Amino acid sequence: MEFPRYVGSMRGRHFLNTNDFTRDEIEEVLRVARDLREKYRSRVPTPYLSGKTLFMLFYNRSLRTRNSFEAGMFQLAGHAHFLSPQDVYTPTLPEDMIPYQTESIADVARVLSRYGDGIAIRIYGDAAKWHIGRGHRVIQEFAKWSSVPVLNMEDDLYHPFQALADIMAISDVAPNPSGKKFVVSYAYSGGLKPLAVPQSCVLIGTMFGMDVVLAHPKGFELEEGVMRACRENVARYGGSFTVVNDLRTAFEGADFVYPKAWSPRAFFPPYNNRVDKEGAVEYQNRFKDWICNQDLMDLTNRAKYMHCGPADRGQEVTDDVIDNMSYSLYFEQAENRLHVQKAVMSMVMG
Amino acid sequence: MEFPRYVGSMRGRHFLNTNDFTRDEIEEVLRVARDLREKYRSRVPTPYLSGKTLFMLFYNRSLRTRNSFEAGMFQLAGHAHFLSPQDVYTPTLPEDMIPYQTESIADVARVLSRYGDGIAIRIYGDAAKWHIGRGHRVIQEFAKWSSVPVLNMEDDLYHPFQALADIMAISDVAPNPSGKKFVVSYAYSGGLKPLAVPQSCVLIGTMFGMDVVLAHPKGFELEEGVMRACRENVARYGGSFTVVNDLRTAFEGADFVYPKAWSPRAFFPPYNNRVDKEGAVEYQNRFKDWICNQDLMDLTNRAKYMHCGPADRGQEVTDDVIDNMSYSLYFEQAENRLHVQKAVMSMVMG
Amino acid sequence: MEFPRYVGSMRGRHFLNTNDFTRDEIEEVLRVARDLREKYRSRVPTPYLSGKTLFMLFYNRSLRTRNSFEAGMFQLAGHAHFLSPQDVYTPTLPEDMIPYQTESIADVARVLSRYGDGIAIRIYGDAAKWHIGRGHRVIQEFAKWSSVPVLNMEDDLYHPFQALADIMAISDVAPNPSGKKFVVSYAYSGGLKPLAVPQSCVLIGTMFGMDVVLAHPKGFELEEGVMRACRENVARYGGSFTVVNDLRTAFEGADFVYPKAWSPRAFFPPYNNRVDKEGAVEYQNRFKDWICNQDLMDLTNRAKYMHCGPADRGQEVTDDVIDNMSYSLYFEQAENRLHVQKAVMSMVMG
Repeated sequence: MEFPRYVGSMRGRHFLNTNDFTRDEIEEVLRVARDLREKYRSRVPTPYLSGKTLFMLFYNRSLRTRNSFEAGMFQLAGHAHFLSPQDVYTPTLPEDMIPYQTESIADVARVLSRYGDGIAIRIYGDAAKWHIGRGHRVIQEFAKWSSVPVLNMEDDLYHPFQALADIMAISDVAPNPSGKKFVVSYAYSGGLKPLAVPQSCVLIGTMFGMDVVLAHPKGFELEEGVMRACRENVARYGGSFTVVNDLRTAFEGADFVYPKAWSPRAFFPPYNNRVDKEGAVEYQNRFKDWICNQDLMDLTNRAKYMHCGPADRGQEVTDDVIDNMSYSLYFEQAENRLHVQKAVMSMVMG
Repeated sequence: MEFPRYVGSMRGRHFLNTNDFTRDEIEEVLRVARDLREKYRSRVPTPYLSGKTLFMLFYNRSLRTRNSFEAGMFQLAGHAHFLSPQDVYTPTLPEDMIPYQTESIADVARVLSRYGDGIAIRIYGDAAKWHIGRGHRVIQEFAKWSSVPVLNMEDDLYHPFQALADIMAISDVAPNPSGKKFVVSYAYSGGLKPLAVPQSCVLIGTMFGMDVVLAHPKGFELEEGVMRACRENVARYGGSFTVVNDLRTAFEGADFVYPKAWSPRAFFPPYNNRVDKEGAVEYQNRFKDWICNQDLMDLTNRAKYMHCGPADRGQEVTDDVIDNMSYSLYFEQAENRLHVQKAVMSMVMG
Repeated sequence: MEFPRYVGSMRGRHFLNTNDFTRDEIEEVLRVARDLREKYRSRVPTPYLSGKTLFMLFYNRSLRTRNSFEAGMFQLAGHAHFLSPQDVYTPTLPEDMIPYQTESIADVARVLSRYGDGIAIRIYGDAAKWHIGRGHRVIQEFAKWSSVPVLNMEDDLYHPFQALADIMAISDVAPNPSGKKFVVSYAYSGGLKPLAVPQSCVLIGTMFGMDVVLAHPKGFELEEGVMRACRENVARYGGSFTVVNDLRTAFEGADFVYPKAWSPRAFFPPYNNRVDKEGAVEYQNRFKDWICNQDLMDLTNRAKYMHCGPADRGQEVTDDVIDNMSYSLYFEQAENRLHVQKAVMSMVMG
């Protein structure tokens, strides 16, 4: 069987953040994802990673990510290992080593590189000690030592495969997303969520020349490095990037809305001298009115509703919105995870 | 490779309870299972689910079920994901949602339906809060929302794949089981077991026109819906269905005996206003003499001994009975699990 | 595709201890491992266990073993199940049964034998109750009842696949290891480790006619049965076997050094009437100067450094030694695990 040219076309590259790639490269990923989606739906075999193994290290729970990576590897004729940190000697940064329970990431990455073809990691929140950026450092440490591609399955800064699935869903609706108004907004949840999804959303939206509006209450600022990267994307790819602190203003005339909880960073290191979860929850509880409901949707330009899942129903969004299949992209986004991941894996591991 | 006609012959159907199917359909499942057993033993490849994925959600422990489903999918050239509830956001009924730990079954079922080809679930006991019927409702909820077949790997009402393995073992010995005396009896255990196995046993026995005798102490009644379905089976398929409260009477002249523990339902909702495990254990401890031993076997018509496993040796059965390979079908029943499950999966997922 | 003659050449044999095999057999395993290593590196498909299933029971954590067995089975076109004891009914020796949580090994082994093609087990330490030899008895019990090959993934007496990987690494450097000085020495760790690795090391070294020097403080004696087997190996295969209680003496002129922690046996049954972990830790804390550093390496005949991993850096060995790729075989040993395991599996399960 002759393989498509894209198999192995980015051989050996890590995938930690969409913004590490050019827009041309990301557009090629989407083309590949659409090819794989079409083949999946019509049951055309795609054994592009035959005999290859992906090691998946999950420091956090997962439904979509785990199942789409594991099923995706199998659909590519490969195999994925599901690894819980407690089943291995937890791979750990040098400063966090605990004798007899942990093993240095440098050693783990080099050993796994000898057994297989890719290493995928999810780490944020408690697993990254709520020190913002530490989860990403873990993944960077893997990338430093691994001789096979490292894939970011969501850390505390980025969720690049979600962003790919999102822009694929957007461009399914609007083949040229330039100039479309894309609202990435805070929405209330009682839980503590990482910054990864909103940060990857504004990065991918600005890369595609959209008019990106980031909406959040004061105290929910994103990382300065991400804000700067978004402004650079605007300079390079067109569109605009604005921040507002009001949900109704944000939603007016929007084409796509992505209301999603994240945590107020001021309560966590390095912005605070300790992890203050209680303070963070108490603070965010002031914003229970940041819920996406039909009233808000009525302000938009018949916008599509988006969420990475799992959505906190009744907090982030009302049931009538998320379940309104005339404008909710919720399940399309989830499905696209499968296809974009198979695309990147085919390209970097093929 | 040309596939047998049975592959996909029941495409898309859920498998929650044997009694949802006609006797003709179940007999076809058994023919397929025997074909697959023959091919397995002679190492004939059976890639009937090539490239297909089964998601297995285990809320409870399992040896036979997990390994026979996972190995079975692989033998059919497919792949099974082993999912613990704690590894995903626990899929949950609407009334049981806990923010940030659970996800609605409606969402989980629809997402998984986009990634693969079948969803199998085991849930009973603590995982179903000992509210009898709640485990089955969880599986029904999956079936309601899933667009791929849902398979019942044992809930608190039914264990349909065990029943298939059992009737396969019975009909290996007695090709026409009609008129054979099949005793499904309570046997003592200190543990608390669901009603699933005895209920599925009496349902399958009556479907095959056997003379089914249900034996248990007072307080161990089965669900009224199951009793009614058994009487309807008798009306439709012949045979008989009687209940006795005495073990010796039951065993006299029996051809097959299936002594197995379950829990007295009066101590659990909806038959009690609270879950009273201590009361149930205390009550069932009165029946330690309900043990299957050689004395009892001597009353039978050289009956075959049956148990779904794991058997509580020394409580439900003596070692000399279960390990007597001249009449114990224990390992045949366990082995048949592999073949009947491959049969149903080939038929509904192919 | 025609398979190599070695596939199935030891069909049906268990692999519990290298010393259960002759040197000729072990040398054949190494030849096969090198063939498979070459094919892996040049991406030649090796579907020698197509459609076959390995059940892996891990009572203890693992990075190398789990991933090399699971990836190895996949590279041979087979499939491995990762089984935690808590996910199944923990398979247990007769004297350790706990109703409703455990299942007899006799039953588990016979059931799994009907579903697949091999059973691999790791058990030592807490899982074997620190009664030295009990972990090995568990594996022997599996071997007694299983009708498919049983593989020892490390118990409390032996780690045979590690020994194979080690002698492969040694003979990569010294094609004829006879007469090379091989030092297996204690090295300090704060943790409690089993005797498996040093015991399998001295066994494999003496089988290959090396001048094996075992170095440890008093109190760290190995099992008498192992010592006797080593002396018998010397009688049969040449070389020598000596014990010293001093690290510097041992290292002088060494060609290969393998400094590795294990536990002082006098604190554990059957050498003690109770498990005394605190006593063991306190005792071994006297030997913190048993660390492999550059000073010691300078005493050797430009020796290669060896360790099975994970190494306790700063206790067993200094970073500058283990990370000195000019003489550290650390990652080669880890990689060889993949190849020797695929070799044995091809031979016994093919």
